[in-house]
Amino acid sequence: MVYDNDNIFAKILRGEMPSTRVFEDADTLAIMDVMPQADGHTLILPKTPAADLFELPDRASTAVMRTTKIVAEAVSRAFNADGIRLMQLNGPAAGQTVFHFHMHIIPCHADRPLRRHVGEMADPATLEAHADLIRAALGAG
Amino acid sequence: MVYDNDNIFAKILRGEMPSTRVFEDADTLAIMDVMPQADGHTLILPKTPAADLFELPDRASTAVMRTTKIVAEAVSRAFNADGIRLMQLNGPAAGQTVFHFHMHIIPCHADRPLRRHVGEMADPATLEAHADLIRAALGAG
Repeated sequence: MVYDNDNIFAKILRGEMPSTRVFEDADTLAIMDVMPQADGHTLILPKTPAADLFELPDRASTAVMRTTKIVAEAVSRAFNADGIRLMQLNGPAAGQTVFHFHMHIIPCHADRPLRRHVGEMADPATLEAHADLIRAALGAG
Repeated sequence: MVYDNDNIFAKILRGEMPSTRVFEDADTLAIMDVMPQADGHTLILPKTPAADLFELPDRASTAVMRTTKIVAEAVSRAFNADGIRLMQLNGPAAGQTVFHFHMHIIPCHADRPLRRHVGEMADPATLEAHADLIRAALGAG
């Protein structure tokens, strides 16, 4: 796959598009999914340009998993989750819609089914409030 | 979570239970899922005892992702997949049924919906035939 430098996540990483950020380090950025399957649905992006798993260098993959664990722990605490689902989609047939590798962190509750993938846009103020909960959990971690 | 040394994957890793293996290295084992959501559905297990993401040391996580990429490429070729879905479940509310960390590799096709998680047991001979396709793709990699 040819990496498109103008995909939405590339623009977010360059600061050319807005996003609701919860965590950043040298190699990764964590943002709120704008079409959350559950409250607290977060995405981990490597800063390395890579359309999918197959293009992602091992070093970036290691950084993604390190950040995923840190943020998943915070999401779990912030939303009092009963479980956490990680999902990573490669190719439109798998449901990938933005062609920059991203790991989904989706908090699950025993009594609440997930909303569908690529569903409704969340209200920006709600996303910001959810991000605040995650940032607080990260701070208390 | 307290790690149960007698979970099915611990037994498979110790060779006390049968499994259909497609790849093994010092840190990981790849086996066919016995209730595949699609033909070629494969699981990557770290050899480190860890019930879930939160217990998995970074070193083991790195090994899992390295093996996941290698095996996902082979699964994609072997089943001529249009896409690959990675999934990793933590806690019963997220759908986790075996409490040893595992990464799902699920090949996707544009014209074929996935079967449900924890569905029907596959015929062992079919799993073995699918494993042969993946082993051949790994050999040709």
